[in-house]
This record gives sequence, C-alpha cells and structure tokens, in this order.
Amino acid sequence: MQNQLRVFFLLFALSAPAAFAQATGDLGLVVERTEGSLLVVDQSDRARIGRITGLGDLSHASLVYSPDARFGYVFGRDGGLTKVDILTQSIVGRVMQAGNSIGGAISDNGRYVAVSNYEPGGVRVFDADTLELVADIPTGSKTIGLVDIPGTRFVFSLWDDGETWIVDLSDAEPEITKITGMGANPYDALVTADGRTYIAGLFGDDHLTALDLWQHKPTPTPILEGYAAGREGLPVYKMPHLEGWALAGTEFVLPAVGQHEVLWVDARDLIQTGRTKTHGQPVFAIARPDGRHVWVNFAHPLNDTIQVIDTVSKEVIHQFTPGPGVLHMEFTPRGHEVWVSVRDAGKIMIYDTQNFEKLREIEALNPSGIFFTNRAHKMGL
Amino acid sequence: MQNQLRVFFLLFALSAPAAFAQATGDLGLVVERTEGSLLVVDQSDRARIGRITGLGDLSHASLVYSPDARFGYVFGRDGGLTKVDILTQSIVGRVMQAGNSIGGAISDNGRYVAVSNYEPGGVRVFDADTLELVADIPTGSKTIGLVDIPGTRFVFSLWDDGETWIVDLSDAEPEITKITGMGANPYDALVTADGRTYIAGLFGDDHLTALDLWQHKPTPTPILEGYAAGREGLPVYKMPHLEGWALAGTEFVLPAVGQHEVLWVDARDLIQTGRTKTHGQPVFAIARPDGRHVWVNFAHPLNDTIQVIDTVSKEVIHQFTPGPGVLHMEFTPRGHEVWVSVRDAGKIMIYDTQNFEKLREIEALNPSGIFFTNRAHKMGL
Repeated sequence: MQNQLRVFFLLFALSAPAAFAQATGDLGLVVERTEGSLLVVDQSDRARIGRITGLGDLSHASLVYSPDARFGYVFGRDGGLTKVDILTQSIVGRVMQAGNSIGGAISDNGRYVAVSNYEPGGVRVFDADTLELVADIPTGSKTIGLVDIPGTRFVFSLWDDGETWIVDLSDAEPEITKITGMGANPYDALVTADGRTYIAGLFGDDHLTALDLWQHKPTPTPILEGYAAGREGLPVYKMPHLEGWALAGTEFVLPAVGQHEVLWVDARDLIQTGRTKTHGQPVFAIARPDGRHVWVNFAHPLNDTIQVIDTVSKEVIHQFTPGPGVLHMEFTPRGHEVWVSVRDAGKIMIYDTQNFEKLREIEALNPSGIFFTNRAHKMGL
Repeated sequence: MQNQLRVFFLLFALSAPAAFAQATGDLGLVVERTEGSLLVVDQSDRARIGRITGLGDLSHASLVYSPDARFGYVFGRDGGLTKVDILTQSIVGRVMQAGNSIGGAISDNGRYVAVSNYEPGGVRVFDADTLELVADIPTGSKTIGLVDIPGTRFVFSLWDDGETWIVDLSDAEPEITKITGMGANPYDALVTADGRTYIAGLFGDDHLTALDLWQHKPTPTPILEGYAAGREGLPVYKMPHLEGWALAGTEFVLPAVGQHEVLWVDARDLIQTGRTKTHGQPVFAIARPDGRHVWVNFAHPLNDTIQVIDTVSKEVIHQFTPGPGVLHMEFTPRGHEVWVSVRDAGKIMIYDTQNFEKLREIEALNPSGIFFTNRAHKMGL
C-alpha cells in the first residue's frame, strides 16, 4: 500500500506539481490572444504561476468557470471549445464545435456549457464534464447575446430574425420559448447581474430592447430611444461591449456607441439620466465592485489611456496612460486592486484602486481578456 | 532529489490526504454548535468531506474566508478566534482574544481580521496570516455591528454611546472617524452589499439609523420610524438578525421585530413599501441570489417551518416543514440549491430551489450556520 502510494504521488508530483494543495479562489486566467495560450495568475501573490498552451485562435476569446472554480471553458473565435484545469494547468478536453463562435455560458448548476455560433449559426450545448454534445439548437440565423439565467436556462438572440429565445434545460427535453419583435438586427445583448432584465443592442433600430424575464410572458420594451441618433447606417470603429452594464450606485453606466462619452441610465426604469464626456470612444465601462468608481478604456487610436469616473459627481477624477493597447480590466472580487491588459506593452499591470498606485507589472504575450475565478459564482456572464 | 521528493510527498499524503488537488470554489463549513466543530462540505457533491474539531464554544459562531477561499476565520462566542485550513481540514491558528465576542470581518485585501467584543468591549484587529495583534481599539462600550467596507476599512457601533466608528487601516496608523448621534443602544447593524449604506438597529429608539458611507462626512438619518411601535421596552424572544438585508428586485426584505411578518423596504430611499404576514416571528429572511424568492425561517416554537415568498406578488408561494430547529439557510452562489440546517434532526437538508424537491440529507451534530466559500468575494459580511 505504501509503495503504491509512493509511486502514485511521485508520478503526480513530477507531472503536475502545481496541483498540490492550491486553493482556487484567488486564481485567474489571462487570454494571450496571438499565442493561443492562457496565463494562469494568482491575485494574492500578484504573479503568473503558469501557462496553458494549444488553445487555437483566441482572438476575442472569452471563458467561464465551473462552480468549484477549477475548470475554465474557453470559447475561441474559431469554434473551438476548450476545457482547462487551473490546478494542473493543462487542457483536459477540446472540441471544434462550429466554424465561428462568439461566446458561451455555463448553466447555474454547472452541468451545461452552451456556445453561440455565427457559422453555421445556432446554439450548441455540451456536458460540462465530458464535452459531449447534449443539445443542438439550430436557429437559421447568426446567434448572439448568449447568457445563463436561473433555472438551468439560457437566453440568446437571432441577428437575422430579431427574436430572443429562452431555452430551459431543467428537464430531459429542451423547452424553447421564442419572443418575436425584438427589433432589427440585435448585435449583442446582456442580462443584469440578478438575471432579471435582458437587454439587446440593435444595429438596425434607433433604440435598445429590454425584456423583464420575471414576467410570465416577457414583452419586448424599447428603451433609450434616440440613443443612436445621427449614426444611422454608420459602422462604428469598434462595437462597444454590451455584456455587463456597470451598476454604479443606482445607475448603469454604458459606453455610448460612436461617441466620446458614457451614458448613465437609471437601473430601475432604464431611462437615461446623464452623460459624461470621455477621452475617446469608450470600449469597456466597468464599475469597481462597490460601484463608487467606473473605469473606462478606449478604442484605437486612444487606447493607451484609462479614465476613472466618480459615480456621485459623474466627473472624471483620474486619468492615466498604462501603455499602448489597453484591452481589458478586471477587478479583484472586493475591488481593492485592478488588473489591466496592456497588449502592445506585453504586460499586465496591477493598480491599487484607492490611490491609483501601480503595484506590479507581469509579462504576458499580447494579453487581452482577464478572468478571475470568482466569476464562477456570478450569473449572466 | 527524487528521494527527498518521495519523502516529502509521502509525509504529506499520510498527514493530509484531503489537500490533494482540491478546488475550493464549491466548498463550505457548517458550524456544529454544541461540539465545537466544523463540518467541511462540498456543494457539487452534496456531501460532507471532513470535520475540524477543537474550536471551543461555537454557539452563535460566525466565520469569514480568506480571498483565496482556503482559510476560514471563526469567531466563537467565548472570544476565541480560530483559523482553519479547508484544504488540510485542520486548525492552523487559534487565539483567545477576548472574554466574549460577537463576530468579525476580514478587510477587502485579506490582510486583517477584526473582531468585535462585548467583554471587555472594543475591537481587536489581527494579521490574517499570523493572527498576531495588529491594532487594539478600546471603545469603553460593548461593540456591535462590525463590517468591512472598501479601502481597508471596518465600521462598527457602540451600544452604550450610540456612536458609529469607521477605522481606516490603509496606512501604518489606524485612522478613526467617530460619528455621534446614531440613537439609543444600537444592538446590531449591517452594510448593504455594495458597502455603501450602514444601517443600525436600535433597542432604545423607535426607528433605525442609516449612514451613507459615500458622503464625505456621513450623517445619521432615521429610517423606518414607528417600526417598533407597540413593543417599547418589551424584550423580543429572539432578536432578528440584521446582518444582510435581503435585496429582492428593487426592495429589501427584513424580519419585523416581534411580529409575524416581514417588511419590504424600497432599496433606494429606505421607505417601507409593504408587509407580508408569515407563519411565525421571522429570524432570517434570505433572498435567493437572483432575488426572485425570499426564504424565511422562524423563532421557537415555530422553528420547524420554512416559507418561500415571491418577490413580485409578495405572497407566500410555498411552505414546508424540514424538521425541528431550522436555524440557517445558505444558497449555492447562483441559487439553484439551498442548504438548510435542521439542528434537532441532526441534519443538513438540500433542496432544489426551482421545484422545492429535497435532494439530499447530510448527518451533522446540531448544525447551525452554513458558510460557503464564495463569501470570500463579498463585502460587508
């Protein structure tokens, strides 16, 4: 028995030392977009602790976590779905599930991983343990804005048809509810942090559309009418991300499409309450977890800068230049520090969010999205 | 080298096998109050995976987690502060820091653990790594309602003096801000989940007092006046817990003191918006993480029952009897299941929150508080 144990542990120790007695609550993965790799990082040590390679095309990749904060499910733009183990720092499963995918989600119980596809369109659902296909939901359309909501459900929208579908996977057969009349060409969507309100951005209409998912039969409601006035038919340089409007106090903050400003929207009735002029065209407006400050980064060529806006005064209180190609920001769960991807500097930079001091730089290869494991516990990501 | 490794891993394997490649995101600790022990549980497996003993008097014990979700800091009623390692399932530190303590908190950066004391009163702050005393803050009063807020700060109130103190530990010397005029005999307090609004319950006044901690100089504001009408000077059977008002949609839900009802309070202006009659005198009113349902348990002798209230209709939609002595409820982070301590049945019971089906029973010795590791990522607990 002791000999067997010895052999087992020796083998284990040599092949995957990092899996040893490692808590996962303060870890994270950073997408290295051009390398097809992920950096494994430790928030408490402000350090990189490993790298996982071989994930294919990771431009615009995103990922979600299993409920135990051990496995990451990575959605590559090339249609690859890769499961990685953050403890052993290795790939434990990979399927090419479509030709061109744009993101995914994990069900509230951690059993299902859903992927939203451009090519051939539709949504595919996989077993989170085995990556076996569980449900194939063709839509006849590019599918966007896929999110998870409570009750083993996913919600997504159809670019071509202006519909939103709710898929319930709590029973053996998927049950699909289709909501029509969402508007012309939804290009992205989000759900609020409580999983209640689904909001779709429209390419072909001058408003957004909201659904109250707590209603028995949710009805599309136009919000922020005139939001896109003056930019009809104009492509924007970079589509601001709708995913996760920042909740700051009693308002949401969101990047204004094609403008150098962020919009403030009352979180309860979704009516615009203000605007703040910004340095450039905002890409992400992310609230510190307590909502007191909002951090904003910008589109090319002004993407070397970050501005911090105070929620009470709605004024920019701090501006600085981390370096060329600021792509993403991720706060530690309770907001005392923020990690920033500076792609063209090849660095992640870590800042104290109270005094804005730089605490550390970490080398990374063209870093983009930063994903901390506490996302495992959040809805609608 | 290989021999050394072998010896090391063998020793480790024999002394603490549970520490092996265990992610910590879905673990938890359950207080076994009369035994002075903690059950280590796994949410995904719906199972107990170990027990940590020797923690002293755990009646009314509570605990907080380190940012990596590895260490729990347990606040015993007897003044004991115990640090446990959930990976090795063992005590790694313990100090008797006072004669009689009533709870604690951990700073946003995970560096400091603060404990609030009845005897001798005051707050003591400990290094989270070593449990060495970092700051001793005498107050000349019983100290209650200790919470953490952003910026390495703690907030607490003084029973005897009706004051609230804010302690800032971000610099070498603690900086204390004292707010007077909170009202007569604050007995408990809470902070909202964003760390913004601190609310104290008063034993000697017919209202509660709120502080907006985002103000430069927070001013005490009476709220819910007349809340206690008719019960002046009457002791309540069991003081309902103020910690963590349940945010359900746009309202808070809280147990009404001494009444068989819960109160609904607008989350923005803190004005009462409704009441729901309940089976008994509520102890905890806890919102499912999405806020759609509120689960309520009750004081003796009606403490065998749980009611579930719908947030939209404010009506009781489900009632059941888990068994004698329902003491606490904890939702999985995304709310698909709930764990319930049923003390006198010697069991933890696990329910599906969508269809209310019982999924599992776990044996436990007089279980009370259930604490899942995702609490590591929340403010104000």
